[in-house]
Amino acid sequence: MPGPARADAVVLCSGGLDSCVTLALAARDHAAPAVLHASYGQRTAARERQAFERIADFYGIPPGRRRVLDLAFLGALGGSALTDPSIPVPRQEPGPGIPVTYVPFRNAHLLAAAVSWAELLGAEPIFIGAVEEDSSGYPDCRESFLAAFERAAAEGTGPGFAPRIVAPLVHRSKAEIVRLGVALGAPLELTWSCYEREDLACGECESCRLRLRGFRDAGVADPIPYASGC
Amino acid sequence: MPGPARADAVVLCSGGLDSCVTLALAARDHAAPAVLHASYGQRTAARERQAFERIADFYGIPPGRRRVLDLAFLGALGGSALTDPSIPVPRQEPGPGIPVTYVPFRNAHLLAAAVSWAELLGAEPIFIGAVEEDSSGYPDCRESFLAAFERAAAEGTGPGFAPRIVAPLVHRSKAEIVRLGVALGAPLELTWSCYEREDLACGECESCRLRLRGFRDAGVADPIPYASGC
Repeated sequence: MPGPARADAVVLCSGGLDSCVTLALAARDHAAPAVLHASYGQRTAARERQAFERIADFYGIPPGRRRVLDLAFLGALGGSALTDPSIPVPRQEPGPGIPVTYVPFRNAHLLAAAVSWAELLGAEPIFIGAVEEDSSGYPDCRESFLAAFERAAAEGTGPGFAPRIVAPLVHRSKAEIVRLGVALGAPLELTWSCYEREDLACGECESCRLRLRGFRDAGVADPIPYASGC
Repeated sequence: MPGPARADAVVLCSGGLDSCVTLALAARDHAAPAVLHASYGQRTAARERQAFERIADFYGIPPGRRRVLDLAFLGALGGSALTDPSIPVPRQEPGPGIPVTYVPFRNAHLLAAAVSWAELLGAEPIFIGAVEEDSSGYPDCRESFLAAFERAAAEGTGPGFAPRIVAPLVHRSKAEIVRLGVALGAPLELTWSCYEREDLACGECESCRLRLRGFRDAGVADPIPYASGC
């Protein structure tokens, strides 16, 4: 019998643009998505959590299908501008190589939690809003990583459970993601992308710049307020 | 220059027999192993943590090379006799299939944390005391899972870092592990395996039975005290 936590997909949702559009796609195709958010000691953790809850509210996801993962361990390791206040957040779009905002192997922690929950729920599709090319160049956003992790998830869980890592945006550009979100009626006004500030988006950090370019290239006004009046 | 956290290997260490012998092997071959323990809301978490600290003391591992991962998320998910008090711990060795003590995809969480830390340390060998055949039948202890995870770790981390998952016991029997531990001078008297009790090992749970058979088959007296006088 259906219980309160019955679900047919697990969706990782940071509260940012990409994960919101990913949830919009999952919610279009699945009747009862479960959503998983993570805090890892990043600078804007409280604001991202708020965005996550509002987006989950928008999609009518009940408390039994929402979970928050506390990855304080990752934050305490440091080594990233997102979790170590002594490393400044870059104020331009990332160039070649891995930016200092990379949190080592973060997506493996998120996917491990999603797979654990999905196995208990019996929900095989696991959605993640990873973007490979038009993004920050994090190695754990590459399709090759996601495919390898899917294989590990199949090998490391019980028989009869066939987890699938679904990354519908992995080869999309930011502008395509914005347009797709608009077409799906995703609540882009509820999302939060800024790496620096929690009151108004700074408009200047690596993440704001990627986002603003995406909206600009899509010819869509970004509905969130910016400190710099972008 | 060497800092306090300089390390040449990361070793997952629950505080049980298998991870103690794995650390003994790692410490034989590496000058500065770093050790990682996890609590995930299991019944004997405090006792396992104590065993971990004592074993790390034995090997002279300084605080900068010890970390504890809090996986409260996994515990809160439940679904396992180790984390859900309403599911009794079996009192016999596991038969075919996956026992109710399986914690869904637990080792992926442990390995993700080990890889994150290892990438920051630049320490490529990651030791885990997983045992495939003569153990509980957990899918995340299989060599096929470990190999797939190693591939995911290579794909999901930066260039120039080549993580290796080292599982030296994966095809050993419990008796072989006991004998190897004795030969290496591992502090087996400091280990904790019981799933049920924290004062004296119960001698009756699935894990105690596996352990006791290993010592018996090896012809070695188990140095820890048992409630049942085993």
